[in-house]
Amino acid sequence: MLGNFTYVNPTKLYFGENALEHLPEALADYGKRVLLVYGGGSIKKNGIYDKVVSLLQKAGKEIVEDGGVMPNPTLAKVYDGCRIARVGNIDFILAVGGGSVCDYSKALSVSIHCEEDPWEKYYLRMEEPSCQIVPVGCVLTMVGTGSEMNGGSVITNTETKLKIGKVFSEKVFPKFSILDPTYTFTLPNYQMVSGFFDIMSHILEQYFSDSDDNTSDYLMEGLLHSLIHSSRIAVKNPLDYEARSNIMWIATWALNTLVAKGKTTDWMVHMIGQSIGAYTNATHGMTLAAVSIPYYRMLLPYGLPKFKRYAINVWGVSAEGKTDMEIAEEGLARMESYMRELGLVMNAKELGVTEDMLDGIAEGSFIMEGGYKTLTKDEIIQILKESMEAVK
Amino acid sequence: MLGNFTYVNPTKLYFGENALEHLPEALADYGKRVLLVYGGGSIKKNGIYDKVVSLLQKAGKEIVEDGGVMPNPTLAKVYDGCRIARVGNIDFILAVGGGSVCDYSKALSVSIHCEEDPWEKYYLRMEEPSCQIVPVGCVLTMVGTGSEMNGGSVITNTETKLKIGKVFSEKVFPKFSILDPTYTFTLPNYQMVSGFFDIMSHILEQYFSDSDDNTSDYLMEGLLHSLIHSSRIAVKNPLDYEARSNIMWIATWALNTLVAKGKTTDWMVHMIGQSIGAYTNATHGMTLAAVSIPYYRMLLPYGLPKFKRYAINVWGVSAEGKTDMEIAEEGLARMESYMRELGLVMNAKELGVTEDMLDGIAEGSFIMEGGYKTLTKDEIIQILKESMEAVK
Repeated sequence: MLGNFTYVNPTKLYFGENALEHLPEALADYGKRVLLVYGGGSIKKNGIYDKVVSLLQKAGKEIVEDGGVMPNPTLAKVYDGCRIARVGNIDFILAVGGGSVCDYSKALSVSIHCEEDPWEKYYLRMEEPSCQIVPVGCVLTMVGTGSEMNGGSVITNTETKLKIGKVFSEKVFPKFSILDPTYTFTLPNYQMVSGFFDIMSHILEQYFSDSDDNTSDYLMEGLLHSLIHSSRIAVKNPLDYEARSNIMWIATWALNTLVAKGKTTDWMVHMIGQSIGAYTNATHGMTLAAVSIPYYRMLLPYGLPKFKRYAINVWGVSAEGKTDMEIAEEGLARMESYMRELGLVMNAKELGVTEDMLDGIAEGSFIMEGGYKTLTKDEIIQILKESMEAVK
Repeated sequence: MLGNFTYVNPTKLYFGENALEHLPEALADYGKRVLLVYGGGSIKKNGIYDKVVSLLQKAGKEIVEDGGVMPNPTLAKVYDGCRIARVGNIDFILAVGGGSVCDYSKALSVSIHCEEDPWEKYYLRMEEPSCQIVPVGCVLTMVGTGSEMNGGSVITNTETKLKIGKVFSEKVFPKFSILDPTYTFTLPNYQMVSGFFDIMSHILEQYFSDSDDNTSDYLMEGLLHSLIHSSRIAVKNPLDYEARSNIMWIATWALNTLVAKGKTTDWMVHMIGQSIGAYTNATHGMTLAAVSIPYYRMLLPYGLPKFKRYAINVWGVSAEGKTDMEIAEEGLARMESYMRELGLVMNAKELGVTEDMLDGIAEGSFIMEGGYKTLTKDEIIQILKESMEAVK
C-alpha cells in the first residue's frame, strides 16, 4: 500500500548532448560570484573545465576556484571550502563532477553562513539549516549517486572515523543539474560497470520491502528493465549514446526520492558494502555486487512473494510447473548470470577482504530495519563468507 | 533514443488519507487573502468544503469565494473570476476540485494582473506571462487530468467555439497539491471507470511513438501494469484504498511531463475524443475508449515493433510460434477484453454519435503528427464508423 507521504523535487534538469550550453541561462537568476567546485582534475584533461570556465566568463560571472574534492569528501575539506567561499564572498556554487563533488557542494551550501559547527548541527544532530543557503548547481560527469537531484550529502570525519549521510530538505537540492551522457563516455570499464550495479542496487534496496501492492514497485520494475537492457548494450559499446543516456536518466530517477514514496526501504546491501569500503577502499559498486547475491539468497524466504514477483516481472522467469521458491531462486540465478556477464566482482576476496576483517566489517555495518529481515552480526559474517567462497 | 530535453516540476505533493491536514503548513508562506475556487458544489455535500474553510480560518486566512466552475471552464468565467480576485485583493488561489477547477485556477493566476487580454496573449498567441503570477494550490477531488502537477490549462471560448489547451511553464504549476485518495471514493462507477481509461489513454498516447529504446517507455509499462492491476480491483471494490491510492498516484505521473521526456507523443485519440465530446457532451474518458481500439488497429502496421512490445511487456502475450503481427494483434485483443471487463463504452453510438455527425467530428479533430501515422480526415471517419459497428 502507498503509505502517506510528501513529495517535492524542485531541481531543474538540462538533459542531453551539449546540454552544458544551457549553463548561462541556468545561472541567469543568480549572483555574479561563482565558486567552481571540482575533484581531482580529470575535468581539466577532458576539456569540460575549459568549456565551463568559458561559459561562466561569457555569462559575466567571476570565478573562485575550489578543486581537489576527494572521492569521500572530508569535513576538513568542508571547513577549507567555507573559508574560500567566505573570503571570495560567493553567491553560487557550481559543482562539476560526480556524486562526491555534488555532496560536498551541498555541505558547503549550508555551512558557509552557518554560525554553529556544521558537522555537529547537520551530521550529528541531523538538523535542517536555519542560516542563508548558498544555491548549488551541478554539471554531472559521472552517474550513480542521484546527488544531482536530491538532498543527500555524505561527509567523512577522518578524525572520528565517521562517514555520515545527511539527507537535506528540498531547499538544499541543486537548483539545476546539467546531464550530458557523453561526459560519462570516458569512464574506464571497471568504474562504468561498478556504477551500473550501484544504480541497480539503489533500485533493489527500495524494491525489496513491503508485501503490499504499490505503484512504486511497478515503476522500479520499469527502471530495472531499462537498466538491464541498456547496460548489456553499454558494456559491449560504451560509446552507445542511446544506452548511456538511458542509464544516466535511470540513475537520476533511481535515487531522487520518487520510487521510495509510500513504502519502506532496505539499504542493508549499502551498509555492508560501505563497511567493506572502509576496510579495503574498494570501488563502491563492486562492494555492493560482492554481497548482493548472498544477501538476497538469505533474505528470500522472508520475502518470498516479492522475490517471486521479481523473478517473473524483471527476469521473465516462467512460473509454469514450479514452486514459488523455485521461481524466486531462478530469478536470483538469472540476476547472478547478468552480473557475471557485466563483469562485476562476485567474490569479496577480489576486493581485498580477508578473514581477519570479517568481524570488523560486520561490526561496522549499520543495521537497517526496513527490509524483510533485520540481520544479526553473525548473519552479516555469513554473507561475507559466502561471498568469499563464490566462484570468481 | 532520449532526445534532449529540460525537466522541472516544482509542485509539492501531500499524498494520503487526511492529507488535507497539511493545508495550513502548505499555505504558511503565502499571503492572507485566499480565493477559494470550486465547481458545482459537490464539495459542499461531501463535507470537503467545510473542512477546507475550517482549516483556512484556523490558519488565519481570509476567504473570498469563487464557486460554480463548470466542467469545461469558459473564458467568460475567467473574466468574472479576475474581477472577483481583483476586488478581493487576493494573495493566493486555492482550487478545490478536479482538473477543470485546477485548469481554471491556473488561468486566473496569470490573468488577474495581466494588462493584455489573457485569451489573446496566452491561448491564441501562446505566450508566457510577463505579469505577477498569483500562486495556486490544489485540493484534488477527482483524478485523471494531471493538472495538479503540471502547467496545463484548457479554457473554452464559447463565443468563438474554441477550446484551447495552453501548457504554461513551471512558474504556473501549482505550488502544492493535496491528494487524498478517499476523496475519489464517492465518484459514480461510470465516471470512475471513464477516469481510469483517461489515465490509460494519457499513458498510451505518449507510449505509442518513436521506435527507439527509451527509459520513458519502460516507466510507462510500469505505470500501465499498476493501472491495469489496480483498476481491476477498484471496479469490484471502489472503496479499496490500496487500489484507489495507486490509481491517484499513477494519474499524476501519467501526465506531469515525466514520461514524455526525450520522445515524441501522439495525442490523436484525445483529439478525436474531444471532437466527439463537442458534438455529444459525452463523458471524456468514454469518448477515448470508444475510438481507441479502431485507432490502434489502424496504427498497428505503422508501429508494429512497438505494438509487439506492448503485447509482450504489458499484456503478457507469449511470442512463441507467432508472427509479429499475430503477437501485436493479440495484445490489442487483450486490451479490448480488459476494457470490456471494466465496462467502458466501446461503441460511439452509445455516446450519441450519429452518421450525420461523422463529417463534423472528423473536421473538428485537430490532426497531430507525433504518432506512427498522420491521419487523414477519411481515416478518422473510418475509425468512427468502426467504433459504431463494434459490439456494444
